[in-house]
Amino acid sequence: MQKIHVGLCGLGTVGTGVVNVLENHQEQIKHKLGCEIEIEKILVNDLDKPRDVVIDRAWLTTNPDELVDNKDIDVIIEVMGGIEDTNKLLERALNNKKHIVTANKDLMAVHGQKLLRLAKANKCDILYDASVAGGIPIIRSLSDGLASDHIEKIMGIVNGTTNYIMTKMTDEGLPFDQVLQEAQALGFAEADPTSDVEGLDAARKMTLLANLAFKMELHLEDVDVTGIRDITQEDINFAESLGYTIKLIGIASIHEGKAEVSVEPTLLPKDHPLALVKNEFNAVYVHGESVGETMFYGPGAGSLPTATAIVSDLMEVVKNIRLGSSGNTYVDPQFERLLKDDNEKFTRNFIRLEVNDKAGTFQEITNVFSNHAVSFAKILQLPGEEEGTAEIVMVTHKISRGQLLKSLAQLEELDVVRRLISHYRVDGEE
Amino acid sequence: MQKIHVGLCGLGTVGTGVVNVLENHQEQIKHKLGCEIEIEKILVNDLDKPRDVVIDRAWLTTNPDELVDNKDIDVIIEVMGGIEDTNKLLERALNNKKHIVTANKDLMAVHGQKLLRLAKANKCDILYDASVAGGIPIIRSLSDGLASDHIEKIMGIVNGTTNYIMTKMTDEGLPFDQVLQEAQALGFAEADPTSDVEGLDAARKMTLLANLAFKMELHLEDVDVTGIRDITQEDINFAESLGYTIKLIGIASIHEGKAEVSVEPTLLPKDHPLALVKNEFNAVYVHGESVGETMFYGPGAGSLPTATAIVSDLMEVVKNIRLGSSGNTYVDPQFERLLKDDNEKFTRNFIRLEVNDKAGTFQEITNVFSNHAVSFAKILQLPGEEEGTAEIVMVTHKISRGQLLKSLAQLEELDVVRRLISHYRVDGEE
Repeated sequence: MQKIHVGLCGLGTVGTGVVNVLENHQEQIKHKLGCEIEIEKILVNDLDKPRDVVIDRAWLTTNPDELVDNKDIDVIIEVMGGIEDTNKLLERALNNKKHIVTANKDLMAVHGQKLLRLAKANKCDILYDASVAGGIPIIRSLSDGLASDHIEKIMGIVNGTTNYIMTKMTDEGLPFDQVLQEAQALGFAEADPTSDVEGLDAARKMTLLANLAFKMELHLEDVDVTGIRDITQEDINFAESLGYTIKLIGIASIHEGKAEVSVEPTLLPKDHPLALVKNEFNAVYVHGESVGETMFYGPGAGSLPTATAIVSDLMEVVKNIRLGSSGNTYVDPQFERLLKDDNEKFTRNFIRLEVNDKAGTFQEITNVFSNHAVSFAKILQLPGEEEGTAEIVMVTHKISRGQLLKSLAQLEELDVVRRLISHYRVDGEE
Repeated sequence: MQKIHVGLCGLGTVGTGVVNVLENHQEQIKHKLGCEIEIEKILVNDLDKPRDVVIDRAWLTTNPDELVDNKDIDVIIEVMGGIEDTNKLLERALNNKKHIVTANKDLMAVHGQKLLRLAKANKCDILYDASVAGGIPIIRSLSDGLASDHIEKIMGIVNGTTNYIMTKMTDEGLPFDQVLQEAQALGFAEADPTSDVEGLDAARKMTLLANLAFKMELHLEDVDVTGIRDITQEDINFAESLGYTIKLIGIASIHEGKAEVSVEPTLLPKDHPLALVKNEFNAVYVHGESVGETMFYGPGAGSLPTATAIVSDLMEVVKNIRLGSSGNTYVDPQFERLLKDDNEKFTRNFIRLEVNDKAGTFQEITNVFSNHAVSFAKILQLPGEEEGTAEIVMVTHKISRGQLLKSLAQLEELDVVRRLISHYRVDGEE
């Protein structure tokens, strides 16, 4: 029986998971592929670190050359993370005709298109389904299952840490800092949570999904990113009283060939499928012209779900090797990169203002909005926290981002407006 | 540019959808595949029927030979339905080395394994992702995306008609017959709704999913099927007061190499992801050993979602033709067909009894259950509709089907028991 030899870069929790999944599903893999998969070398930082898995010491090395220059290795599985050094390593591997499976969304969001093209030029595969929503085969579904559709919009909860935090803040009324600490203690948040909390991790994943869905080469810099750090319990409560739940949502949409990608706190109707996705779970909602709404739901991360996605990708790579059909998973972008400007981005908005509570205030404010043709679906006015102040909470009809920004700028210049407390996108309803 | 020629069998709503999707996505398909797809012939019953789509009259034929024996045709798309005659036609097509894409779950549930083997022997592909939950790439996800996992359980809402009926009965308190009529008027139910309402349609789809998930050749006859016709508003209300929603759920599970597949009305906790799937939508919940819970949600049928799934399958067939890798999508079953017997099927149950309301009744009943080691999580006793009667509503802990059936048989022999009103499976909780 033919053997395919794998070099594994990284032996953290995901790498250990890959070793376990390969071992536990050996028979299944052999049956399906008609060949064996064998780990040849594992790249680690420390040969002597105690491991959760029994590993042949001869497999371990601290020298990447023993993997990427190794004539016996057919496929590199990259689960060590990092961007620039890892990119150089994978470029070398591809030039040495090694196929690649990676879970590294940071790398793929920055260098993905170059790596994919290099792979194709070398007749190699590079698969990365594990990099977005580990337990959900979303990349495969976008590139194959929905291949014949025109995808108009993707909305995703693609970061488990922030969804966990938003769930606890919403359901238990706890403040951000306390929930973050809990999440760190439970292992749902990193010691340095910046990349999750600021929305960068989600932005990387949305870049990958938008590229595939819209067949366009979008860059990480094209994503408008706002994190969840400033969301308060009052925001959540006002949203709730108006029938909404606040989630960190990545949205990618396309209209007349122009794309828009953002990651930002978003108010969704409480019964929207994404509003019901709780805790560390991920979900990706896809709207296709023909298929209508579909949603994919599952664990976003975790050692075993991610390892399973990696081994499924590995099985596809091996199948292609066996059939002589490698190097055909990547398709060049079909469309030119075109982005909407602020006057082409339409959305509803939730806005909270603190104002002086005196006669004429409300009219001054509505004047500003009507100057910019902004109209409202819902308006609440309540006594402010401080004597002599009031709070105004509004949900606009669909307006352009240009209209929104100009209105807010002009409002902040009014004497009666003490401050703009917060404003968020509203989506998921007609 | 190379051209792939397609023969389309059937030009109903789905067939018309296929023609439209192929036409509207020509550029996208050419870009992705590097070749053109052209319809060569369309098999219809009536050449002169008015159509919703502009069709070259020369494409139409009433003679199947012009498709299956046509040397110019590479791929047959079968969307005409039917079982035995259609099977013979597809067998001929395969023996003539034509690849097949079909949306016909009735056919695939009965003859699928034989057709898949025949395709493989002829180095042809036969793809059928459109046959289950049209808008959801679930077959692809089970066979590729989750290929490296051990799938332990699938729970599916795979019939839109019955889910629509159950939703209306639950949310609007309407009786079965009225909702069925409404569904027929809206086109969500067939004029003859038997196959949907009795659960047979769902059973066919669950057979296909279970075969793939468990890598075992299960037959339609292996599925225990109960429909929704006998569910009453009282069942729904009692379920609701205990925290459950009733849905028609297909369940396939495997334990120690033995499988179990059923389609039956099932009580799910109100916040279970499947309980939240409303109206004609479908969803398939998959539990894998490594991946944990994932769920796929989308439209179950409809002309365009199904046509999209068909064209996505067609694109895979064409890709395989171009790469010379046809005939490798099917994998022989890995495991012997083994089924659980009644003593190996464990579940919780919801049971309603009408009893004589006199001293000692309750004890007689609980005696029967305790003789069979059946214990309860929840018990309600209420006055019956008739004077001197009472109703007992119970939810058992997990017991075997053997225990359940023996207890119920013995209960029905008791003088104090007037009748067993209903009993349903309870699932989706620990």
